[in-house]
Amino acid sequence: MAELKKGMHLNLFLTSMGHHEAAWRHPSSDIGRIHDINYYREIVQKAEAAKLDSIFLADRYSVSKQAVKYGELGGGGIEPLTLLSALAAVTEKIGLIATVSTSFNEPFNVARRFSSLDHISKGRAGWNVITSGTDEEALNFNIERIPPHAERYSRAKEFIEVAIKLWDSWEEGALVKDKASGIYADNDKVHEIHHKSNYFSVKGPLNSSRSPQGHPVIVQAGSSKTGIDFAAQYAEAIFTAQQSLTEAKGFYQALKAKALEYGRSQNETIILPGICPIIGKTEAEAKEKEAMLHELTNTEYSLIQLSNRIGIDLTGYPLDEPLPKLPDISNIQGHKSRTQLIVSLAEKEHLSLRELLLRLAGGRGHFTIAGTAVQVADELELWFKNGAADGFNIMPQLMSEGFDDFIQLVVPELQRRGLFRTDYESDTLRGNLGLSFSKSDEKIQNY
Amino acid sequence: MAELKKGMHLNLFLTSMGHHEAAWRHPSSDIGRIHDINYYREIVQKAEAAKLDSIFLADRYSVSKQAVKYGELGGGGIEPLTLLSALAAVTEKIGLIATVSTSFNEPFNVARRFSSLDHISKGRAGWNVITSGTDEEALNFNIERIPPHAERYSRAKEFIEVAIKLWDSWEEGALVKDKASGIYADNDKVHEIHHKSNYFSVKGPLNSSRSPQGHPVIVQAGSSKTGIDFAAQYAEAIFTAQQSLTEAKGFYQALKAKALEYGRSQNETIILPGICPIIGKTEAEAKEKEAMLHELTNTEYSLIQLSNRIGIDLTGYPLDEPLPKLPDISNIQGHKSRTQLIVSLAEKEHLSLRELLLRLAGGRGHFTIAGTAVQVADELELWFKNGAADGFNIMPQLMSEGFDDFIQLVVPELQRRGLFRTDYESDTLRGNLGLSFSKSDEKIQNY
Ligand SMILES: Cc1cc2nc3c(=O)[nH]c(=O)nc-3n(C[C@H](O)[C@H](O)[C@H](O)COP(=O)(O)O)c2cc1C
Ligand SMILES: Cc1cc2nc3c(=O)[nH]c(=O)nc-3n(C[C@H](O)[C@H](O)[C@H](O)COP(=O)(O)O)c2cc1C
Repeated sequence: MAELKKGMHLNLFLTSMGHHEAAWRHPSSDIGRIHDINYYREIVQKAEAAKLDSIFLADRYSVSKQAVKYGELGGGGIEPLTLLSALAAVTEKIGLIATVSTSFNEPFNVARRFSSLDHISKGRAGWNVITSGTDEEALNFNIERIPPHAERYSRAKEFIEVAIKLWDSWEEGALVKDKASGIYADNDKVHEIHHKSNYFSVKGPLNSSRSPQGHPVIVQAGSSKTGIDFAAQYAEAIFTAQQSLTEAKGFYQALKAKALEYGRSQNETIILPGICPIIGKTEAEAKEKEAMLHELTNTEYSLIQLSNRIGIDLTGYPLDEPLPKLPDISNIQGHKSRTQLIVSLAEKEHLSLRELLLRLAGGRGHFTIAGTAVQVADELELWFKNGAADGFNIMPQLMSEGFDDFIQLVVPELQRRGLFRTDYESDTLRGNLGLSFSKSDEKIQNY
Repeated sequence: MAELKKGMHLNLFLTSMGHHEAAWRHPSSDIGRIHDINYYREIVQKAEAAKLDSIFLADRYSVSKQAVKYGELGGGGIEPLTLLSALAAVTEKIGLIATVSTSFNEPFNVARRFSSLDHISKGRAGWNVITSGTDEEALNFNIERIPPHAERYSRAKEFIEVAIKLWDSWEEGALVKDKASGIYADNDKVHEIHHKSNYFSVKGPLNSSRSPQGHPVIVQAGSSKTGIDFAAQYAEAIFTAQQSLTEAKGFYQALKAKALEYGRSQNETIILPGICPIIGKTEAEAKEKEAMLHELTNTEYSLIQLSNRIGIDLTGYPLDEPLPKLPDISNIQGHKSRTQLIVSLAEKEHLSLRELLLRLAGGRGHFTIAGTAVQVADELELWFKNGAADGFNIMPQLMSEGFDDFIQLVVPELQRRGLFRTDYESDTLRGNLGLSFSKSDEKIQNY
C-alpha cells in the first residue's frame, strides 16, 4: 500500500466475564458483580487509561431457556445502549459502540438514541448495525421466522439511509440559542426529511439536534457477500472473525476494493478482526490457562451455542466423529458468514464435533491465541503490517484477569514498537479513528 | 381517611432549563450547557441530597420546525432512557422515571430496557407509560394519523401485560451462578411466556434476568376517563395536572375509588399533581420574577405550543378576545384530559386567548404559584392533608435558580413541618415510595 499507515486501532469487545464460554466459572471471575455498574466502570476506565479507541457491546434479541442454564446471559443481560449511556457518564475519551438491530427497531428511535448518546458522551458514539439472524429473535417481535437474508439487508439499507437523513435534518450551526431575540434555532437549517420508501415513512426532523460527531461512527460486522457490500458502502469500522492471516488478508482486500467501488478511500474503512488472547508469562503458562478453561467447558452448552449460532440443531450428533454433512449452507438465511467459517474450519482441519466445540469455545470462530505478550504482539504486528487489519477487536477470553494481562503486557509492548498510541489524539471517536467529520455536509444538499 | 398517612413524596420533573416556556431566555439559565451531562448530573445530585423520591423525564416523538425556532428542544433533545441511564451511574438513591410510549415501541425492547435500567441503578427504575397523542409523532413511524384514543389505550394495556409477563419470566432466585456445577441459572424458574393476542406475539423469556425491583415502578399520566381507568389498574404513581384544590380532590377520589374496584388499596396508587413554583424572599419578589418570565414569553411560540398540545391550529385567532368555541372536544383523539382542562380553564375564568397563553406559559396547565417558601409549603400541605395529593410533581419554572430555591427553602420548611423525609428509607424507588415488591410473585403463577 502506498498510503502512510498510522497506528493500529484497538477496540475492547466488552462482555461480563470474558469471551470464553466457561469464563464465568473461572476462579478469577467475579460472577457476583455481573449486574454491577461499577464492575463495568472499572473495566472501561482501565481501557481508557490504556488509550483504547473504543469499547463495544454486542447484542441479541432473545435468550433460550436451555442456554441460560449454562451461562448464556454471561453478558449480564444489560441492554447495550443502557450500559453504554451509563458508562458515558464516567469516561471522557473512549469510544462507545453499541449494537442495535435494524430488524426489530424503528429508525426514528434508533437515530435519536445514538444522537443522544453522542450528545452525552460529547462525540464518542458508534453504532454496530446488525440485521439479527435467528428465528428465536423474530418470535419476540410478532413474527415466526427471521426474514430472508437479502430482505434483512435491504431493510437495513433503507434503515440506515433514514437514520442519516435524520441526523442531517439538523445542519451544523442550526442552534442559535440567542436569548435576546428569543431565537433558539435557525429553523431554515432544520429540515423535514419526508422519507417514504419500501419499509419506512418518516417525516422528521429528528427531535435531537445535531450531535458532536454529526453522525455517530457506523460499524458493521456482517461478512457474507451481502454483508461485505453493505459494509463497503456504509461502515466506517468493520468487525470480522478470521481464522488465519491468509483469510484475513483476503477479506481485507475484498472489502477495501469494494469500498473503492463506492468511491471510498482506504482510510474510510477501518477493518478490525477479532482476537481472543490468553496471555501467560511463558507460552506454557498461557497454554495451561487455556487448558483450564477448556476443562471448565460444558459440551452440552457448547452444542446448544453452536446450534443456535448456525441455526441447525446439532444435539444428538456423535461427538467424536467428523462434523456430518450439513444441509446446503449456501442457502442459509441466518448468520451466513459465521456458519460458513465454522463449517469450513471443521472440514479443513478434519475436526470431530467435540474438537470443533473446543475450538469455538474461546471465541466463537474468532482467532484465538494462547501465548506470551510478545507472541501476541508479534501476531498483531504481522496482521497489521501485512494488509490484514487496521487494528483489532480485542476479545479477552477472561475479562478481568485476561484484559488486565492485555493492557498491562501487550499494550506497552505495542507502544514500544511504535504500533499503538500513547495518548488520545482527540476527544471524539471519529477523531481517534482518524475518520472525517465532513461526510454529512456533502449529503445534506440532497434534501 | 382512616389509614395512616406517611410523608409526602416529591418528584422532580426534570427539564433542561425549566418548565416556563421562556425559561431558557432567563439570565440565570445556562443555555450553553443544554447538552452537557454534567449539568444534569449537578441538578440530580442536588435532588438526591434533598432526598427527593425521584426524577422524571417526559417524552415526545417529534418536534416541529416551527417550535424549535423558539426553544421547543428546551428539553435538550436527549432521549429519556439515555439520559437516565447516564445519571444512574452518578447517583445512588434517587428514583429514575423515564417516559416511553406504547404506540411507537415493541414491548420486548421496552421491558428489557427498563429491566436493564433497574439493574444498573440497583432498583431505582420507573416507567411513565404514555400512548402519545399527536399526528406529528405518528408521521415519524410510518403512519399518517395517531390511532384513535381508545385503540391506543387498548394497545397500551396489552403492551404493559406483555412487559409484566416478561419481567416475571425470570422468577426470583432463578440465578444460581454456581461455578462448581456450571449451573448459571435454574431454568425451571425461567419461563417462555408465549403471549399471543391482538397486538403482540412474544415468546420470551426476557433476555435480562429479574431486576432488583422485580417490576420497575409503573407510572401513568393520562387523566381522561380511559386514562384514569388505565392508571387505576396498573399505575403505582400517577402524575396529573390540576388547576385547583377542588379539582385535585375530585381526581384523587375518583382515581382511588377506581383503583379499589381493581382490588388495589389506597397505598398502591401514589397521586402526584404537578406544581410549578416561582419562589421569592417575599411574595412581591416572586411576582416580579414571574412578571419577568412573562415578559420573555413569545406569543407566537405560545400559540404554536398550545395548538400542538390540543391538536387544533389556533394561529390566526384574535388574541384579545375570548377563546372561540372549539370543535367538539369530547371527541378529541389526542391528549384528551389536557385539552379539556385548558378549554374549561379559559371558559371558567373568561380568559382572552392572550391571557390563556400566559396562564399556560409557566406550566402548560399544571398548577402554578408565585410566592414565598412558606406560601408554597402551605399550599402543598393543604393539598396533601385534604385528600388531593400523596405528594407532588415539582416542576420548577426555572431549573437552576428555581429548583435551588425549592430545595433550599421549601424542602427544609416541609421537613420542619414533619411532612417530608430527612433521609431515604430505602435504596430502591419502590422502597422510598412505600410500594410492595410482592405483586409479581402472585402473578407468576399464571404462566
Ligand atoms: C465482532 C462481531 C460482532 C458481532 N456482533 C453481533 C451482534 O451483536 N449481534 C448479532 O446478531 N450478530 C453479530 N455479529 C454477527 C454478524 O453480524 C452476523 O454475521 C450477521 O448478522 C450476519 O451477517 P452475514 O450473514 O452477512 O455474515 C457479529 C459479528 C462479529 C464479527
Ligand atoms: C406530569 C405529566 C407528564 C406527562 N408526560 C407526557 C409525556 O411525556 N408525553 C406525552 O405524550 N404525554 C405526557 N403527558 C400527557 C398525558 O400522558 C396525556 O394526557 C396522555 O397522552 C393522554 O391522556 P388522556 O387522553 O388520558 O388525558 C403527561 C401528563 C402529565 C400530567
